Amino acid sequence: MGGGETDKSPNVVWHKSTVTRERREKLHGHKSFVLWFTGLSGSGKSTLAHAVEQALHDAGVSTFVFDGDNVRHGLCSDLTFSEDDRKENIRRIGEMTKLFVEAGVVAMTAFISPFREERERVRSLFPHGDFIEVYCNCSLAVCETRDVKGLYAKARAGLIPNYTGISSPYEAPERAEIEVATDSQTLDESIALVLGYLAERGLMPA
Amino acid sequence: MGGGETDKSPNVVWHKSTVTRERREKLHGHKSFVLWFTGLSGSGKSTLAHAVEQALHDAGVSTFVFDGDNVRHGLCSDLTFSEDDRKENIRRIGEMTKLFVEAGVVAMTAFISPFREERERVRSLFPHGDFIEVYCNCSLAVCETRDVKGLYAKARAGLIPNYTGISSPYEAPERAEIEVATDSQTLDESIALVLGYLAERGLMPA
Repeated sequence: MGGGETDKSPNVVWHKSTVTRERREKLHGHKSFVLWFTGLSGSGKSTLAHAVEQALHDAGVSTFVFDGDNVRHGLCSDLTFSEDDRKENIRRIGEMTKLFVEAGVVAMTAFISPFREERERVRSLFPHGDFIEVYCNCSLAVCETRDVKGLYAKARAGLIPNYTGISSPYEAPERAEIEVATDSQTLDESIALVLGYLAERGLMPA
Repeated sequence: MGGGETDKSPNVVWHKSTVTRERREKLHGHKSFVLWFTGLSGSGKSTLAHAVEQALHDAGVSTFVFDGDNVRHGLCSDLTFSEDDRKENIRRIGEMTKLFVEAGVVAMTAFISPFREERERVRSLFPHGDFIEVYCNCSLAVCETRDVKGLYAKARAGLIPNYTGISSPYEAPERAEIEVATDSQTLDESIALVLGYLAERGLMPA
């Protein structure tokens, strides 16, 4: 880290670490990858991500879940919910998950991440197969019925602009690796679907 | 993640994960913490951090080193080297190391991080004892002699404004947990000093 005043990263030299991702994966006894949960607010992303984490942890897998709780209050506490800032939020989360995967950890994210282009941009940070999109497909009607935070009601009343599903679009994934019908499947069924995919891909520890 | 337009994190609800830092530490077989290397450019931060990582990895410790290479090109690629952006760079790195420690990983950082106030701000993110400052104390004269990137020469020629040690201050730590005289001690001695501290604190795996 030298420091020209205005250039972006002009003087940064790359140091090769002798401890690589492969060696960290070997230490942990499993491959690292990203499970990127996407879906409407209330579609069960966070619930499913934490339940899958529990199952993976019990199987000896090194895990971490990113959600609004641990990101919005810390790394992204400087960001608002404007369109630009929501994009920057997803960009940073993508870059951070990349470092977790380098560290040999299975990174899980639970953000609405409504825009296809942004999700594809995160996907492009990873070698093929390391980014696994999990579409929590739940009808807007069911999400609105749940409305645990009362936000859909507020959005319907015009009190929250750019609210995904109401006043801002949700662009459903076209090629999600895993799709879970979180409005009809039980939590146990949903967990089994994710774990089944991972086992099939050889991503569960031996 | 709901979304009011302008408020910062207004609608964020905290989900408790059942997989905690403690359970992840148990899975990894060791405690997690931060080793925050600080010192002038050329003081050997990155070299020492990677060497310590190697030793820790060989001892079965889950590790990751953050440096300009993997942060400036990714998470912080939007930042310049202006004073404000250098502060934001350190803030984000601090928040990110916090998440790695939550994930049960020993996080190491190798940034000049010249300002005491910013380092203290990062320290304040952690429970007492989890933030371990490693001062790479190397005279400016020796750092200038090394000048691997030719940046000190450029800074002396007035080509790089705000260059730490030349046109911008380096505020040495007043209470670093570990101080290494990287201009007189060998790399092996420096590694032993860091590992000795960790062993004394009970932070090496059993």
